Amino acid sequence: MSELTIWTLDWVPEGPRGFVRDLRLRWACEEAGLPYAVRTIPFEDRETNHLAHQPFGQVPFLKDGDLEIFESGAGLLHLARKSDRLMPRDPVGAAETVQWTIAALNSIEMVTVPWWFLKITGAENEGLTGWMGQRLAQLERVLSEQEWLAAGRFTVADLLMADVLRVSKVRAFGARPATEAYVTRVTDRPSFRKARADQIGHFEAADRKRAEERSN
Amino acid sequence: MSELTIWTLDWVPEGPRGFVRDLRLRWACEEAGLPYAVRTIPFEDRETNHLAHQPFGQVPFLKDGDLEIFESGAGLLHLARKSDRLMPRDPVGAAETVQWTIAALNSIEMVTVPWWFLKITGAENEGLTGWMGQRLAQLERVLSEQEWLAAGRFTVADLLMADVLRVSKVRAFGARPATEAYVTRVTDRPSFRKARADQIGHFEAADRKRAEERSN
Repeated sequence: MSELTIWTLDWVPEGPRGFVRDLRLRWACEEAGLPYAVRTIPFEDRETNHLAHQPFGQVPFLKDGDLEIFESGAGLLHLARKSDRLMPRDPVGAAETVQWTIAALNSIEMVTVPWWFLKITGAENEGLTGWMGQRLAQLERVLSEQEWLAAGRFTVADLLMADVLRVSKVRAFGARPATEAYVTRVTDRPSFRKARADQIGHFEAADRKRAEERSN
Repeated sequence: MSELTIWTLDWVPEGPRGFVRDLRLRWACEEAGLPYAVRTIPFEDRETNHLAHQPFGQVPFLKDGDLEIFESGAGLLHLARKSDRLMPRDPVGAAETVQWTIAALNSIEMVTVPWWFLKITGAENEGLTGWMGQRLAQLERVLSEQEWLAAGRFTVADLLMADVLRVSKVRAFGARPATEAYVTRVTDRPSFRKARADQIGHFEAADRKRAEERSN
């Protein structure tokens, strides 16, 4: 039997709720119908309290029996090999899925996350913004010609790309109707909604527990 | 029989020679003993002349029979599944290899490439530099405790991580002796040297051809 465990933080402030990357793994498990448990590490000292499991001090990491995997992208590829609902089994479809999964991580997120970092630190950079605009325009061209990134169907690559793109400020930057429709289509899936609600509920429960502890 | 073809540019200026990412695929094929051909697309109009093969206008892309794969990271994972010299076949070793391959792309290169971009455009940002320093310090801790990233042996994850790190300006930033020794160890491999020399030779041959055409 599957013994999947998704590790995340026990609590985060309201801002990142609905965006912490354990959501990617929850969502993939929901899509695949794979049962999973969620376990937590403390928010306090999070940068150093789990380096043995995640050397960059981040979440999530995934446990599957004897395997322990950090990097949400690696966790997604691992889950994709467990279920053809996430990745087709034919070589061409599988290769396209891996290719677009890597593209989400290394061609899109590699510009959107630094762009976001500079923006929230008040150091927006015209060159980097232009670079991101170019990449997003290239993706818009692709999405105006096809409904899904790989294999003509929903795959884990769409899950990841939509998660990378749904950050509201990235979506608001420029008119990209095909991308907008794509993100809406992918995040309308019941599995995304459940994963997001579960994550938000997880952190809200931590709020209640903290409040109880304070009132005792 | 294998019919691997690595697609790259027909010519680039001297600066990027030895760094164009077809080198990653050449290197992996050399490590694995996989025969391959190199074919080219024109440098002129490179941003738009091969969007049907690479939607972000980049190189390389890899052809393997009916398969065509862009994103060097995806190409590396494809080659790794063809040869256990690049990735062990046991599930734990394979998962570690994929995990560290993704870490190179999404935890390290996601900060080093934007850092580099800002640096060469004269817009170095203290916050992003600090973020990169933190990531590189975390990696230094890992590499001070183990010789290879995954499975206790050389894998495609080392190939990729060393390629990400060898950009000279990234290496020069701060004292990281374990990382420095690691990059030296990995790039001392004959397969890296051959791949690099072949790439540089490829572009030098293009120089000669251009000179001949001009003199005719």
